[in-house]
Amino acid sequence: MTTAELELATTTATTLSTSTTMKALVYHGPGKRAWENKPRPSIQEPGDAIVRITTTTICGTDLHILKGDLASVTHGRILGHEGIGVIEQAGTGVSEFHVGDKVIISCVTACLKCDFCRRGMYSHCRHGGWILGNTLDGTQAEYVRIPHAAGSLHSFPPGGDEEALVMLSDILPTGFECGVLNGKVKPGNTVAIVGAGPVGLAVLLTAQFYSPGAIFMIDLDDKRLAFAKEFGATILINSTDGHAAHHVMELTEGAGVDVAIEAVGIPATFDICQAIVAAGGRIANVGVHGKPVELHMEKLWDRNISITTRLVDTITTPMLLEGSPLRQTAAGQTRDSSLRDERHHEGI
Amino acid sequence: MTTAELELATTTATTLSTSTTMKALVYHGPGKRAWENKPRPSIQEPGDAIVRITTTTICGTDLHILKGDLASVTHGRILGHEGIGVIEQAGTGVSEFHVGDKVIISCVTACLKCDFCRRGMYSHCRHGGWILGNTLDGTQAEYVRIPHAAGSLHSFPPGGDEEALVMLSDILPTGFECGVLNGKVKPGNTVAIVGAGPVGLAVLLTAQFYSPGAIFMIDLDDKRLAFAKEFGATILINSTDGHAAHHVMELTEGAGVDVAIEAVGIPATFDICQAIVAAGGRIANVGVHGKPVELHMEKLWDRNISITTRLVDTITTPMLLEGSPLRQTAAGQTRDSSLRDERHHEGI
Repeated sequence: MTTAELELATTTATTLSTSTTMKALVYHGPGKRAWENKPRPSIQEPGDAIVRITTTTICGTDLHILKGDLASVTHGRILGHEGIGVIEQAGTGVSEFHVGDKVIISCVTACLKCDFCRRGMYSHCRHGGWILGNTLDGTQAEYVRIPHAAGSLHSFPPGGDEEALVMLSDILPTGFECGVLNGKVKPGNTVAIVGAGPVGLAVLLTAQFYSPGAIFMIDLDDKRLAFAKEFGATILINSTDGHAAHHVMELTEGAGVDVAIEAVGIPATFDICQAIVAAGGRIANVGVHGKPVELHMEKLWDRNISITTRLVDTITTPMLLEGSPLRQTAAGQTRDSSLRDERHHEGI
Repeated sequence: MTTAELELATTTATTLSTSTTMKALVYHGPGKRAWENKPRPSIQEPGDAIVRITTTTICGTDLHILKGDLASVTHGRILGHEGIGVIEQAGTGVSEFHVGDKVIISCVTACLKCDFCRRGMYSHCRHGGWILGNTLDGTQAEYVRIPHAAGSLHSFPPGGDEEALVMLSDILPTGFECGVLNGKVKPGNTVAIVGAGPVGLAVLLTAQFYSPGAIFMIDLDDKRLAFAKEFGATILINSTDGHAAHHVMELTEGAGVDVAIEAVGIPATFDICQAIVAAGGRIANVGVHGKPVELHMEKLWDRNISITTRLVDTITTPMLLEGSPLRQTAAGQTRDSSLRDERHHEGI
């Protein structure tokens, strides 16, 4: 990434302009991107809003796109599906938001009217879903057009921290809905999160809403595990030795975990989840997978487990905005706490 | 099977004897079984009951055992985990049942006291689970010892039909719990049942409790499909052409089914379920699998689906005994209705 791109991605943009063009990060096929001039978006439908981006960020999915993994993203597309900004223009059908409102942009666009939306499955909205930075120009730009604004924007809370709250565009509801809610984390449960990247950490943060008894965090990287410790993981397992599942089974006295959350998206991590899920437990998949996995039905058929998949619906974003521990994190209360140098694999 | 075995398996035994031996179907290693004399069982624990078998039957699992697929079943074991009979002796700790009571034997033994039992997961009871005809002598005999009788027997309803109600030992709760309940069949849902064997038909019967909008039944055998039609399937698909999934997708206009129930236990039928499950749908596995399956996470990761596995807990047996359509079936009301010669693949 160039400095200019990173600045746009991680800091608050201040540029204002009256011109009809804007700067945007544009995809030009596998491995090719450019920070270039594009026409500013304009209202096309009554439900549209034009948002001036003040903060945006980069998702792991954007990296997949840049590798050329997603055929739906074509040459010339402005990338990005996360962002915070200010409404610059609103269509005549937009009653919930007004020009000048500061908003969080949801990574999932929801018409609120189709059958999927009406049962809370915005991810599969027939007129939306994940379209920003995919089949429609996205948020890594000075301006973005948001269709179906009523279902696709959230009011930014007064005094909120943009850098923290941009996590509500995607990563926090993803970890919460696909991992914690699908995994049905209950008080006292033993939870394992496989993958301590940003999404794994989002699972970790939000799993704690339900007071699990122990949270195992499994990753190859000690630095990530140290972050996980800081964010509330109770047991850290570095899986470099290839024996993560064995360690979990040993620590749970052969029972396994009530909830195994896959937050990577490769067969090896899915395998760990299969090997550690307890009888009656849940495997909640969060990772984006590019190939099939081997499912050990010969071992699992009689184990009374569930395996779930989900593209985030962002239906919990309003809830996460209320009383979220994120605000504390944003204010540095957790982030500044000193890391304790405790050894791995410590007991529950 | 010999004539004698079949008679024991499917008809009401009338033999009574005061001797200390009995006849039983005994496993002697892969492919070897014998109808031979064995000592009559006796009370070993206060919670035991000795039941004189009046009706028993054969499960697909018994055939797996006879093939040598189940290492837990050793030489000399009396087979069978389904049956109806009369209590001949009761241990001092048995207060719910008395000598002379007619009972349905549950295929799953439940101590009712362990952690798994106390959360309704009798299948994983620490002192029971599926043990009859597995690690303990079973029901294909004149007498059987039932440990933990309080949790493992059900009163036989006055006037009930033994041949129908023996289905409550295993097959009906299996289809209902593993298929219908795990699949969360709801009114109006489109349900596909892959496999029209006895368990698939048990799914079919009990799915109708929840008033689905359409029930596809998929099988290789037209005779089984004809039974399925008689039992309430709305669409029959003979999968011999290898295009069952394609037909289902065509008939659902590309949407797929809300619930896909796997009632065979091989990769090919699991594949059909993966190919036809709708976004937001459920795959409920009922089949006993002997090898891994390929799970297409590259297609399913964002489809908001669940996949469930389960060994029957038999917690619904009391409910199935109340108001079950089985009694009607047993009385021949359904069974005698004429088969209609309607063509396959007919519309919803």
